[in-house]
Amino acid sequence: MTGRVRSLWAWGWQDKFPDAAARKGLGELARVLVPTATPALRDLPGEPSVPAPRVAIPEALADFAAQDLRDRAAHTRGRAFPDLVVGFAGDFAHAPDLVARPRDAAEVARVLEVCEQRGWSVVPFGGGTSVVGGVDAELARAEREAVVSLDLVALAGVRELDATSRLARIGAGTFGPRLEDELAPHGFTLRHFPQSFEFSTLGGWLATRAGGHYATGPTHIDDHCHALELVTPRGTLATHGHPASGAGPEPLRLVLGSEGALGVITEAWMRVVPRPTFRASASVAFARFEQGVAAARALAQSGLQPANARLLDPDEARLHRVRFDGTAVLLLGFESADHPLTAWLARALELARDHGGTVVAGPSEKSGEGEAGAWKQAFFAAPYLQSALLSTGMLADTFETACTWTQFPALHARVEQDLRAAGAGVIACRFTHVYPDGPAPYYTFIAPLALGGELAQWRVLKQVASEAVHGAGGTITHHHAVGRTHLPWYRRERPALFGAALAAVKQTLDPAAICNPGVLT
Amino acid sequence: MTGRVRSLWAWGWQDKFPDAAARKGLGELARVLVPTATPALRDLPGEPSVPAPRVAIPEALADFAAQDLRDRAAHTRGRAFPDLVVGFAGDFAHAPDLVARPRDAAEVARVLEVCEQRGWSVVPFGGGTSVVGGVDAELARAEREAVVSLDLVALAGVRELDATSRLARIGAGTFGPRLEDELAPHGFTLRHFPQSFEFSTLGGWLATRAGGHYATGPTHIDDHCHALELVTPRGTLATHGHPASGAGPEPLRLVLGSEGALGVITEAWMRVVPRPTFRASASVAFARFEQGVAAARALAQSGLQPANARLLDPDEARLHRVRFDGTAVLLLGFESADHPLTAWLARALELARDHGGTVVAGPSEKSGEGEAGAWKQAFFAAPYLQSALLSTGMLADTFETACTWTQFPALHARVEQDLRAAGAGVIACRFTHVYPDGPAPYYTFIAPLALGGELAQWRVLKQVASEAVHGAGGTITHHHAVGRTHLPWYRRERPALFGAALAAVKQTLDPAAICNPGVLT
Repeated sequence: MTGRVRSLWAWGWQDKFPDAAARKGLGELARVLVPTATPALRDLPGEPSVPAPRVAIPEALADFAAQDLRDRAAHTRGRAFPDLVVGFAGDFAHAPDLVARPRDAAEVARVLEVCEQRGWSVVPFGGGTSVVGGVDAELARAEREAVVSLDLVALAGVRELDATSRLARIGAGTFGPRLEDELAPHGFTLRHFPQSFEFSTLGGWLATRAGGHYATGPTHIDDHCHALELVTPRGTLATHGHPASGAGPEPLRLVLGSEGALGVITEAWMRVVPRPTFRASASVAFARFEQGVAAARALAQSGLQPANARLLDPDEARLHRVRFDGTAVLLLGFESADHPLTAWLARALELARDHGGTVVAGPSEKSGEGEAGAWKQAFFAAPYLQSALLSTGMLADTFETACTWTQFPALHARVEQDLRAAGAGVIACRFTHVYPDGPAPYYTFIAPLALGGELAQWRVLKQVASEAVHGAGGTITHHHAVGRTHLPWYRRERPALFGAALAAVKQTLDPAAICNPGVLT
Repeated sequence: MTGRVRSLWAWGWQDKFPDAAARKGLGELARVLVPTATPALRDLPGEPSVPAPRVAIPEALADFAAQDLRDRAAHTRGRAFPDLVVGFAGDFAHAPDLVARPRDAAEVARVLEVCEQRGWSVVPFGGGTSVVGGVDAELARAEREAVVSLDLVALAGVRELDATSRLARIGAGTFGPRLEDELAPHGFTLRHFPQSFEFSTLGGWLATRAGGHYATGPTHIDDHCHALELVTPRGTLATHGHPASGAGPEPLRLVLGSEGALGVITEAWMRVVPRPTFRASASVAFARFEQGVAAARALAQSGLQPANARLLDPDEARLHRVRFDGTAVLLLGFESADHPLTAWLARALELARDHGGTVVAGPSEKSGEGEAGAWKQAFFAAPYLQSALLSTGMLADTFETACTWTQFPALHARVEQDLRAAGAGVIACRFTHVYPDGPAPYYTFIAPLALGGELAQWRVLKQVASEAVHGAGGTITHHHAVGRTHLPWYRRERPALFGAALAAVKQTLDPAAICNPGVLT
């Protein structure tokens, strides 16, 4: 990240934030999408307002902790919509008191030890891209004297490679691009490309059970993890490394998704794969979204396991600049480092046609071309747009779930109806991942921003969306994690006795409850 | 199981136990395999010796509990080698005091309630095929007044089917054959065929993280489970049903592998698939086992995901009556209900040839033919042979693990050397499952039985095998579970803090520690 500066309030690089002309254009586009909107360019925030820290840096952490204003401001929160609103207002009143950047696992343990002794909260911090309040220093304070942001950036890099077993030991603080850059010379890749790829870390992916590149088969980062190390206030929990095991409940699975509430993930052995050399892709259009849903189901249940099988409804296709003719589109792609995929794609297209699809691009053997290329570009640009839209007076946000194929039609209808009733102007849907038993629907909605009442407005929409998803049987999150935002619905989804079990685990590993208070438990 | 009687001491049906002539032939075969052996036909056990129960059936359980001798004898233990030895001696001194067969989840809860009130141990009992002491009534007693065997046989059958989402709600006490029989009319199958298939239940598979049919990809029952219900002494834990989720640590994964120590699994929503209509299979011989290992690795890392990819070393090929010429053999098979698999098999055979393999059977599009058919038959007969060999004065047993491809050569050499030094005459190896990061090696060993000192002899061999596997980095079990036998090595493999976390969970769900005492925790 040398030389480039991350925005203190918006998504991503400061220099990639759209300029006034671009934002004006965006505002006009928004008005096309949401006719009731009256977009207006707002002034961008000036210098952040950051209070003095409440405590001094303890001697034991002096070598690797800092307290300067900008650094603390940058660790105040994630990038959920309310984070953007508060950041846009220049409000950093709840910045953490210090930022620690331990350089090894022993220093991570030292941070936990100091915080436990003093009763300070610790927020593990990877790339800070949480959209669910997972790194919210204000809420983590929990009436404690101080909040320490434990930034894992110094625990970075690929440390060891076992090419025979296709495993790489990687520091938790490694950002996506560096991780891929260091694997590339060896011919390997993790193939985990969440939307936050550029600004998020391996440790964050593991702690939040991130979903990634593959649209079918093993899609969560969980499935690509061979072993990991978690530093807790009670010591280090290093899991046994094995391809698979039947020895009791799997320890890895208790750590994956623990969101910093049980300790800090410091490194992991990850399953890597050779860079694909064979590709086969195509785009299929459907007159009706329902046809695309049926095709996606057939594909998910076929055993063909395409790497890409993303279904976009007409609004989503439009938003991602893939198609503008009111059709839904299924982006299909296979990849392999071992064999040509002609037979795979041929059968997938047969299935798509059987459900009313028309092949509108491909088959192609190239990567990142045509509609899939347009989609990929728009996909990684989307979070920038959200920030930019906010600055034009528009509210744009996303939420996601997973449900069974049987549940989907009612869930979809309810989401659309309830969000529409709550004031959303555009409600677009795509399937980010599809499984034999159901899809992972992902919703984007846009509404005119209620200036001055942005947070209250967003809370209503979030409440409506979450109630719809939960009420229709979906999980409260397929890959955005729970954090603090999803907690009420997570508590309803989670079996009560599992909640009690998790609390007992927390009490065992973090008896002073200093680790990311308010998350999960 | 109507009309047929299970042996009280040996594997499987009483009427399938080999007669004297067959056992004599087996003894002669054993002598060929282990020249130092002097097989001798031993008298089969007579009537079991079962003590009177220590307690009467409590009023609350009277409707569904029994105490007759044979029933209690049949619930005394599993089918590990020491179980066979003690059963062969007619010793049922530690039979449980009563056998409860609850007819619904409420009656399961009632059993737990009564046992908690009285401080009795409860051993959840599916098919009783544990080979690791998982249902051992003697060890479960733990100095308590009584042991109750909680047999789930009455919680059986496919209760609900969602054909669209390919999900079936199935009672935990459903045996393999019934489960498949009830899915078949709907065109579905679970495709989970562990060696114990005929005599084991869905609940047992889930509680022990059983490995099954598929040799690659999602091989454990864990991956086929959508949701489940666990009745604990503190109430019912029913997990949320979803195709996938990122909402905190996955509750399912804490229950899977809990081996009855956290409560009783009463039912589960399982992912089912249509019965395959396309098949493609072949057998490939290798002059050297190492070539087969390299081919298996290439295949596991290819992304082709064959349903069958079992590598047998020369001894294993001989034992399973597949090949007798000293070559190793790779049994390869693809299956699909969606598409022909010509391209898949063609590439797999190319990979096998690249590593020195010779196709010796196939390609075929039929199921269960030739060498694969011979193997399958021998596979399901093997546990019968173990019992029969015991009755001829031979010790035969198996153990298994999973390790990385990098670890395998040293692990294999150590297992062979140490077991040989400990007196094993034949040590055969096969890969039951293969993953991108490593194989699951499965070992069979045969030795002359030290009559009168069978248990001590077995304990030494088990100790040597477990030390070799654990010492070389393998997991103590890939799919046989931990039970009580693997506990010492499990405790070393399990991160200490995970052990503490699990103990805290146990304390939360089963504070009186009545559920399968001595297992896991």
